[in-house]
Amino acid sequence: MNKYLKLVSKIVLITFLMFSISVKGQSDEEILKSVYTKSLTNGKSYEWLDYLSNTIGGRLSGSTNAELAVQYTKKELEKLDLDKVWLQPVMVPKWVRGEKEMAYFETSGILNKVNICALGGSIATPEKGTKAQVIEVATYKALEALGEENIKGKIVFINRALQPELINTFQAYGGCSVERYAGAAEAAKYGAVGTIVRSLSSRQDDYPHTGSMSYGDLPVAQRIPSAAISTNDAVKLSEALKKDKNLEFYFEMSCQQFDDVQSYNVIGEITGSEFPNEYMIVGGHLDSWDLGDGAHDDGAGVVQSMDVLRLLKESGITPKRSIRVVLFMNEENGLRGGRKYAEVAKTKNEKHVFALESDAGGFTPRGFSFDCSDIMFSKIEAWKPLFKPYLIHYFEKGGSGADIGPLKNDDIVLAGLRPDSQRYFDHHHAANDTFEHVNKRELELGAATMTALVFLMDKYGTETITNTKEIKD
Amino acid sequence: MNKYLKLVSKIVLITFLMFSISVKGQSDEEILKSVYTKSLTNGKSYEWLDYLSNTIGGRLSGSTNAELAVQYTKKELEKLDLDKVWLQPVMVPKWVRGEKEMAYFETSGILNKVNICALGGSIATPEKGTKAQVIEVATYKALEALGEENIKGKIVFINRALQPELINTFQAYGGCSVERYAGAAEAAKYGAVGTIVRSLSSRQDDYPHTGSMSYGDLPVAQRIPSAAISTNDAVKLSEALKKDKNLEFYFEMSCQQFDDVQSYNVIGEITGSEFPNEYMIVGGHLDSWDLGDGAHDDGAGVVQSMDVLRLLKESGITPKRSIRVVLFMNEENGLRGGRKYAEVAKTKNEKHVFALESDAGGFTPRGFSFDCSDIMFSKIEAWKPLFKPYLIHYFEKGGSGADIGPLKNDDIVLAGLRPDSQRYFDHHHAANDTFEHVNKRELELGAATMTALVFLMDKYGTETITNTKEIKD
Repeated sequence: MNKYLKLVSKIVLITFLMFSISVKGQSDEEILKSVYTKSLTNGKSYEWLDYLSNTIGGRLSGSTNAELAVQYTKKELEKLDLDKVWLQPVMVPKWVRGEKEMAYFETSGILNKVNICALGGSIATPEKGTKAQVIEVATYKALEALGEENIKGKIVFINRALQPELINTFQAYGGCSVERYAGAAEAAKYGAVGTIVRSLSSRQDDYPHTGSMSYGDLPVAQRIPSAAISTNDAVKLSEALKKDKNLEFYFEMSCQQFDDVQSYNVIGEITGSEFPNEYMIVGGHLDSWDLGDGAHDDGAGVVQSMDVLRLLKESGITPKRSIRVVLFMNEENGLRGGRKYAEVAKTKNEKHVFALESDAGGFTPRGFSFDCSDIMFSKIEAWKPLFKPYLIHYFEKGGSGADIGPLKNDDIVLAGLRPDSQRYFDHHHAANDTFEHVNKRELELGAATMTALVFLMDKYGTETITNTKEIKD
Repeated sequence: MNKYLKLVSKIVLITFLMFSISVKGQSDEEILKSVYTKSLTNGKSYEWLDYLSNTIGGRLSGSTNAELAVQYTKKELEKLDLDKVWLQPVMVPKWVRGEKEMAYFETSGILNKVNICALGGSIATPEKGTKAQVIEVATYKALEALGEENIKGKIVFINRALQPELINTFQAYGGCSVERYAGAAEAAKYGAVGTIVRSLSSRQDDYPHTGSMSYGDLPVAQRIPSAAISTNDAVKLSEALKKDKNLEFYFEMSCQQFDDVQSYNVIGEITGSEFPNEYMIVGGHLDSWDLGDGAHDDGAGVVQSMDVLRLLKESGITPKRSIRVVLFMNEENGLRGGRKYAEVAKTKNEKHVFALESDAGGFTPRGFSFDCSDIMFSKIEAWKPLFKPYLIHYFEKGGSGADIGPLKNDDIVLAGLRPDSQRYFDHHHAANDTFEHVNKRELELGAATMTALVFLMDKYGTETITNTKEIKD
């Protein structure tokens, strides 16, 4: 076939797909309505999340709970009559918090107790705790100018608040997360004995928020313990320091890093009816931090992704491509599950054309962000009217999700569900990330919205004229 | 001036207004950004709501709390350096719940306690309660077919659930609210001794949800007590009835209607710099039901409306028209405040050109619904791009708000803030409508969104070529 004929046949094919009526003669509008109705009247997400959150609880990588979550979700996927369900082995780090942390600062002989928690990956304090004067900085970059003479022997207190004026709270979080991740390594260079980082929360309250940190290539002997402090206590400490810069801060943590342990990604598949060797995946991460029960981060994404496959089947949709749900292990402190999945896919030469992640909380869905070509994005934007009845308006180019990131290449379309972000960082990585803060309808709307996108992506394909290899020949 | 000249001058005026730069040379984009930033970094809504909810509490019309709320909001408005602040007298009904209600149903000699609350306006049960067999119906319309022979002497149980598949929960609520409002009057016609109505809640839980009901023109002697039952208990009762249709239900309520009492709408005004005799109002209702603290319904709308005037001033906006905040009394069980305000406006011949109400909860704002002409709606739709950075996408024609309804005429533009509706009916009129369920950022985004609309409406006016009387001449 010459180039011109190939192009014409491609256009004809795309046009045909755009107007084809599938699923027992139903229009796209009708199929979406059926998907949303089924999710809201007969969804399984909330029941699954209840079990994951309340019966299992926090699911930190390497913990017994994480393994219980693997077994539970595998068993539930097996009930869905999928074509395949399996576990994909992956070695994960095992960090354990130990006893609840304790901290106070001393002013005029009075001990002011404050709420802290060890950051994930931190070493413990010495058994009798760490006590030292405090030097407050707004960002870890300020440490360089202060130098060893001002820092050595002190506890560095990084007091950087999320910017409330940013509408997208992920942007505010992104602006501060480096302080938590890299602050201790930087402070240690100048001889600090510990770091205390203001919690990355958009609320003023008493909950400390954990999250991953790294010592980078810092030698073991130079590592210092690092904790998050609640936003209320960050304000209190800062005010106290203004009155007495010589006050002393004490903290005690007994966290510990163990050897890597065996764990698993949990995978279920509906095998494609026309293109079984093309894969579209939908997922979230099964692990969570240990303080709450991980209902929003990312229990919500896990159960929504499971429900996508169930809703496709319930709606009588027979996907042309193979649709997989992937429940990734170890997003929080290692991303081992996401990397393993991409590695295996590459080894097996599996052609992944689409990946969708839900890892921004179980709140009212507002839309998606897409990591794809401009021409593919235009194709997707044409579907917006289908989503309007469900108040899904947000279709923007942008990031997708951490777990599916390792799959990125020129041919795959990556997408992230974008729920309303206002409440997310009130709960993120804290003891109040719990089931009662997830609204059933909001969660179910998210599952339906994801299902609708997967349906459309499979029906119309991710091919575009310019990224089709045959046409480039 | 002839008709043609008038038309041309009108077009020139509108064009000029559309492109005029106001507020110290700032563009509309810059002004909106300033408004949102001020609300999110330095808003007052949340602090005011804390006081209204936690220091005052539920504010049922005619209660001491309602009067405390009048005094408090007046005092706070006086601190804002507005041009005028005053109280507008209005007589309101006074209905008092009395002791907490008690109810159970009896199966095989076992008493199953259930959660009920009197509906607002209901009479009490006899002192020793009402006990009778139960007849369950799906809607009050089913009563006619059943007739007196099946109903007389029984308690009518109206078990109509909100439809979960409706995306807008107000639509689901609207579909059932007549059962609560008119069910008792209908049941009484056929000799029922009481009605129990399933709570108008979108959740399965133990909270009964109150709300207004009316006996219409039913003679006093024929009136029967009417209560709401929690959704969980509605399911339990319905299941028990399937096993034993002769089971007996008992309930006890001591509510009472008193004579009307004096109360007030609270009003504050920034007097217009160019058209002081044209009024734009923004408001919510100060009264609430008595079970919770009325944080969402409608403490949120009250504090957001107050903050609109504060944010206009803080942003250096000098409105051309007079902008009023109106805190209406008695929306819940009488609408006396809304009617009084419209009546006084009419008497004084005040030209109201725009009214905006916030009475759908303090959740993330999604946009507005507008009750106006098509041509005015087109004008408003042209402002949508200004709101996009704040994720405000929803601009639709539709209802506005109960309190501003009485102002309706051909010349006024009415609008309602439309926050995300998914969680509203989890809390509406129930004991869990409390401050901790309002998110600070979501509340503040609503206040900013309202301020932005008021600013644009004042800047560009509500006049359109076709509704301008001069042109019609």
